[in-house]
Amino acid sequence: MKFRRSERLIDMTNYLLEHPRQLVSLTFFSERYGSAKSSISEDLAIIKETFEHRGIGTLQTVPGAAGGVRYQVRVREEDAAPIIADLCELIASPDRLLPGGYLYMTDILGDPMIVQKCGRLFASAFADKEIDVVMTVATKGIALAYAVANYLNVPVVIARRDSRVTEGSTVSINYVSGSAKRIQTMVLSKRSLDEGSNVLIVDDFMKAGGTVNGMISMLDEFKAKLAGIAVLVESEKSDERLVDEYLSLVQLSDVDVKEKRINVTEGNYFTRTVN
Amino acid sequence: MKFRRSERLIDMTNYLLEHPRQLVSLTFFSERYGSAKSSISEDLAIIKETFEHRGIGTLQTVPGAAGGVRYQVRVREEDAAPIIADLCELIASPDRLLPGGYLYMTDILGDPMIVQKCGRLFASAFADKEIDVVMTVATKGIALAYAVANYLNVPVVIARRDSRVTEGSTVSINYVSGSAKRIQTMVLSKRSLDEGSNVLIVDDFMKAGGTVNGMISMLDEFKAKLAGIAVLVESEKSDERLVDEYLSLVQLSDVDVKEKRINVTEGNYFTRTVN
Repeated sequence: MKFRRSERLIDMTNYLLEHPRQLVSLTFFSERYGSAKSSISEDLAIIKETFEHRGIGTLQTVPGAAGGVRYQVRVREEDAAPIIADLCELIASPDRLLPGGYLYMTDILGDPMIVQKCGRLFASAFADKEIDVVMTVATKGIALAYAVANYLNVPVVIARRDSRVTEGSTVSINYVSGSAKRIQTMVLSKRSLDEGSNVLIVDDFMKAGGTVNGMISMLDEFKAKLAGIAVLVESEKSDERLVDEYLSLVQLSDVDVKEKRINVTEGNYFTRTVN
Repeated sequence: MKFRRSERLIDMTNYLLEHPRQLVSLTFFSERYGSAKSSISEDLAIIKETFEHRGIGTLQTVPGAAGGVRYQVRVREEDAAPIIADLCELIASPDRLLPGGYLYMTDILGDPMIVQKCGRLFASAFADKEIDVVMTVATKGIALAYAVANYLNVPVVIARRDSRVTEGSTVSINYVSGSAKRIQTMVLSKRSLDEGSNVLIVDDFMKAGGTVNGMISMLDEFKAKLAGIAVLVESEKSDERLVDEYLSLVQLSDVDVKEKRINVTEGNYFTRTVN
């Protein structure tokens, strides 16, 4: 009997972590283990307490016949701070500076551990918002978009620069890239986004915000709604910023390619509340 | 004391799931919970038994002073079979047929739950191989590549069709796409792949294998080694198949765009052993 509870706790933990934001009924667990609902309730209370104590997240209890529990990712400020500090340090290396004030971030974005952590942070920040889908534009933001979507348990849609045969028919828009002021094209598969969807836009890097703005225009075409914007790194504040409401983990300033100087600070993650 | 064990089991489960293939010392857990190593050993025995019983994976014990435990993803055949069957059913819809015998899979590849499951299957198949990095080519295979890399706890590198400023200097190769017999270009950031790396190639779709073959040529340029090839869907057997050794979950045959006919069967996941 003692072992049975241990086994339940381990398996329930795995199950809940694999199904974030999904309502799981007590009946489901009760049948899965052949245990009384009262025992399952006790298990869930222990899991909830541990998840909260260890900063893993929280369990929301929905009472009633159609009720159950739902695991939500929650990152505590004390756990988020060192993640963002590490990220700042990693990004601060002058070696990363590329022509045009861009940053080489391929290694950072290629590290699943880092990407997962950043995804957790954003999912936690947007946990209470109604979000049906995460959107990004190919290519660099894709991994981060999936990480966020994973924790929010919603699909990802990916806009592209060019139309491909494997997308079926597409909607194409033109937008002005904010920094270079060039006209660019973005396409999205017609089947991929439903009307009225609440969309969280995720990207790896935002300069003036032209690309993010392009994605917002795309949402209009699909009659979808903007639910939030999350960017890993925002470049130094520009007078021409096209986007106001966004969440960022890291901010660059004083980027001087010639002098190889770069100043990296925390983004607005802690100062801006999502509402 | 009873609660302490419960808390440890839940937190250790979460920790191990978040750090696959990473050696975690008993000392680490012992200090994390202020518990004796003997208790930690008992906890780990319970977790191992549950992971194996429930098909979550396994714990490998490494004895000695530098030892510890390592979580490995393992999917049992009885759990893999329904995942692949579901995938076949999902893909079999004639609505997915696009000009040229391609398939619309954007919705499937955009579903993090499905992508995670497929990533688990491949990570399980390659769990005993030495793999340092997962490689894919933009764009469609990226999510699957990250899912596999997550479970294997290795970085991802992404080859592209075009060179971008944010990549720094790149290596570019030309390759012949197998089906259309066109010359195509593929680029990879110079900094992104170390000499001698063991590389697992992951892609969403393989027809004649030209793109996968292109990635293999790229490995030669970087003096990296091919450790395996994993594709979600392979198109019907072609006489001109350029690649022999690969693992697939789903196989298409009898693709007839005009007649909207498509025959979907299991790939070679169960029949081909990774060696």
